[in-house]
Amino acid sequence: MDGSTIEKLITDISKLPGLGRRSAQRIALYLLKNKDRSLLPLIQTLESSHKLISECKECGNVDMKNPCNICTSSNRDQKSICIIEDVSDLWTFERTGFYRGLYHVLGGSLSAINGIGTEELTINNLLNRIKDNQVDEVILALSTTIEGQTTSHVIADKLEKFKNLTVTRLAQGIPIGGEVHYLDENTLSTAFQSRKKIV
Amino acid sequence: MDGSTIEKLITDISKLPGLGRRSAQRIALYLLKNKDRSLLPLIQTLESSHKLISECKECGNVDMKNPCNICTSSNRDQKSICIIEDVSDLWTFERTGFYRGLYHVLGGSLSAINGIGTEELTINNLLNRIKDNQVDEVILALSTTIEGQTTSHVIADKLEKFKNLTVTRLAQGIPIGGEVHYLDENTLSTAFQSRKKIV
Repeated sequence: MDGSTIEKLITDISKLPGLGRRSAQRIALYLLKNKDRSLLPLIQTLESSHKLISECKECGNVDMKNPCNICTSSNRDQKSICIIEDVSDLWTFERTGFYRGLYHVLGGSLSAINGIGTEELTINNLLNRIKDNQVDEVILALSTTIEGQTTSHVIADKLEKFKNLTVTRLAQGIPIGGEVHYLDENTLSTAFQSRKKIV
Repeated sequence: MDGSTIEKLITDISKLPGLGRRSAQRIALYLLKNKDRSLLPLIQTLESSHKLISECKECGNVDMKNPCNICTSSNRDQKSICIIEDVSDLWTFERTGFYRGLYHVLGGSLSAINGIGTEELTINNLLNRIKDNQVDEVILALSTTIEGQTTSHVIADKLEKFKNLTVTRLAQGIPIGGEVHYLDENTLSTAFQSRKKIV
């Protein structure tokens, strides 16, 4: 572990999200043992990512086009915007494939503890997008955490001024495949209060 | 997730040990969001690692020098070689700092399931090192798994021909801080059989 470059390699890797020092050591050794088969290709991929990928100035997605493929697609419903916290949420939506509108990546949710206020999120961008385009519906698809729900409320408030704009949020209840006796109290009480008449 | 470069970035990251697709996505997004503060420095560190770090031809350690700092140090006991499976074991030894001899990185342990035979390990190198240098003691510090212990036996057999060479292995027993009622049967029976007279 002498040698500042090895130390720096481990430190840099351990800064990546979800990785501690132990996993960083393991990855560093793996890369150093497979310099030509792993380290070199990884460097090349990171370099072309740095060169080619950027954040969509419209919606905040990451793509090789800017505005991104989704924003510029003629197959997508330009009148619907789904608001999500992060690009990974966009990927989850796209994996299922049922949603055919546009997205807006907020960049997180409001959190006093983490110092994330409305300025840190792309809320103003969103208001401008809605103002400039003929948006019919905004779907709030934020987490059902306290932060996510607070953020939904704040955004819903700001959207009230737009006439002819429908604002919806994802349904809350028992997840599919969920077993009632494993549910937490909040989910169960929400699901109970929002029960639907079926007969 | 359109855009082959993003896909390639995630795939390359997910090939690193211990990372699944989810964690790879998270890391990829983190890097893309912090291109100048994270992605670029990481590329630079990986590049200098590729250029500067190599495997010590003597012991298998990774270092910026070859032979490595440990092999060439005049402060280390050149007559003692500690055999370890991996460079991370070397780091663990060095962190504690009590051992002042040399190392020999085997590169794993014998495993029929994983197709690792004696040829895949650096056993021949080790025999040459012992033959060419005046080594007094070889310490087997391999894992107490079946693979590790098999490997220890195989190496011990090969070392029998060296006269005046002491071969030792790490003591086996209750780990420090271990509670007896949590011990597995193998550890407890080993510790019992190897009990030491104290009075």
